[in-house]
Amino acid sequence: MTQGAAGSEFDVRLKAVAGAIETLLDRLLSPATLAGEIARPPRLLEAIRYSSLGGGKRLRPFLVVETARLFGAEGEGVLRAAAAVEMIHCYSLVHDDLPALDNDDLRRGRPTTHNAYDEATAILVGDSLLTYAFDVTADPLTHADPAIRAELVLALARAAGFGGMIGGQVLDLEAEHAREAHTPEAVIRLQSMKTGALLHYSVVAGAILGKADAKARAALSAYGHALGAAFQVADDILDVEADEAVLGKRAGKDAERNKATLVAALGLEAARLRRDRLAAEAIAALDSLSQGCDASILKEAARFVAARAS
Amino acid sequence: MTQGAAGSEFDVRLKAVAGAIETLLDRLLSPATLAGEIARPPRLLEAIRYSSLGGGKRLRPFLVVETARLFGAEGEGVLRAAAAVEMIHCYSLVHDDLPALDNDDLRRGRPTTHNAYDEATAILVGDSLLTYAFDVTADPLTHADPAIRAELVLALARAAGFGGMIGGQVLDLEAEHAREAHTPEAVIRLQSMKTGALLHYSVVAGAILGKADAKARAALSAYGHALGAAFQVADDILDVEADEAVLGKRAGKDAERNKATLVAALGLEAARLRRDRLAAEAIAALDSLSQGCDASILKEAARFVAARAS
Repeated sequence: MTQGAAGSEFDVRLKAVAGAIETLLDRLLSPATLAGEIARPPRLLEAIRYSSLGGGKRLRPFLVVETARLFGAEGEGVLRAAAAVEMIHCYSLVHDDLPALDNDDLRRGRPTTHNAYDEATAILVGDSLLTYAFDVTADPLTHADPAIRAELVLALARAAGFGGMIGGQVLDLEAEHAREAHTPEAVIRLQSMKTGALLHYSVVAGAILGKADAKARAALSAYGHALGAAFQVADDILDVEADEAVLGKRAGKDAERNKATLVAALGLEAARLRRDRLAAEAIAALDSLSQGCDASILKEAARFVAARAS
Repeated sequence: MTQGAAGSEFDVRLKAVAGAIETLLDRLLSPATLAGEIARPPRLLEAIRYSSLGGGKRLRPFLVVETARLFGAEGEGVLRAAAAVEMIHCYSLVHDDLPALDNDDLRRGRPTTHNAYDEATAILVGDSLLTYAFDVTADPLTHADPAIRAELVLALARAAGFGGMIGGQVLDLEAEHAREAHTPEAVIRLQSMKTGALLHYSVVAGAILGKADAKARAALSAYGHALGAAFQVADDILDVEADEAVLGKRAGKDAERNKATLVAALGLEAARLRRDRLAAEAIAALDSLSQGCDASILKEAARFVAARAS
């Protein structure tokens, strides 16, 4: 899927972070870790593990870890903050897949949580992961300085809330029944909220953990916005291209559902141009970082995000 | 409903805090407050307001405010922390009422959120209120000291999470189909998680905001545990008594659903004795506070909680 050569530094690091996050999530969600507290219902914990372990590239945690590493911040605390973002991402997938929302049966080839368990469990799995993300972020184990923890919590809540991810999900559902929500401007706003906000947070969290100065934070914030936007256009393009490859026609799953996509709003060619322009913008934003900062991995991440759909 | 004389100091304060919380929630959830950020979908915000404004005694905020006031902590920040607990409470009601969970049509005489709007909206309203509670708690407006904010977030996440409220909700659902979950010990554990944890947090939050010393915190924590337990027994008793009054039979809504209750587990008389003993325990716990602390309002709150069902 990636343009980078197999075994490139980027690929190696992406896999390494994904492995570290998997190990940490496994531990954070293990009965042994949680045994000291009030005993939890075993079936809920099993469903939470089903919904968060064993999958994905862990792109959001990767952005947290690699951004923090620009400033020399590494280790358990950074990984915990990164795992918390992934919990938010996983909760959003579990709730979005529910029958009342996108009604999806499969996710990465496996039954969705409400299919593997039941709807009540899926709702409570999502609630649990959302809540636990704030628990993990606010815990002193994540950072010794409470000002860092409180800042992370606030930024995460804003990215995940009705001004961010949840608001975007609502606009996405509404757009299925409202043509006026399919203008390029409306789709861009929807996407900046639904997927962009949490990707942007991931980069900002790395900057917070690295105690980046105001100039570096502004550069990284611009990078995060452009990367988040590029990610979603690439996703829209991927939906159409995957379908073309399989079915030989240009009507992906998004189109079937009347989802608001930038491919539909702009056309495939203009969407590709926008994706490439956004990836270039993301890379350019990093150029204003001080020369001591080697942001080559983050630049590679922007290329990777765009290349998913090429 | 309360034993105290109308116009008693307790009643006056309970109403005053409820009024202040209503005003603050209205403001925190107003389009004007939120206008500076990314525009939110208006229907979602309307449904969030429907689910959190205009109701209830606001007992949890009252406990936050009155506990903080023991230590001279008052004002906007304390009210914000208190409003955040109420958001968590409201989110839990919206999700618990969903068709896949308790499937309730009415809540305080009004259609439940999924009936007034739709199921997708109700799920996202709950997610929004849960997320916003952490946003409001972590915001510098709540307390200037980030250590206080981070401690509040951590305690709130633990009370609301799978080791607390959510875990209790799962046990509650499981108990409908498992007789072994109806032993007094199992019901007491379930209730200490489902409703006790958030009531306990409310008292602890007041102690954190008031920078109470370790001895006072231990006393208030004991008070919070006893009060939370008394609250739920009183609720179980109320369910049976309300039904007796209306229908002339001893089979309340809980019994119909095979809910695990302490009335069913212990019998009505033993449940009443337990409730009164817990209220007395809560009151006694406050006696170890230093003499400068006038905890009479919190003592009255324990009597009030027990008296709901007398």
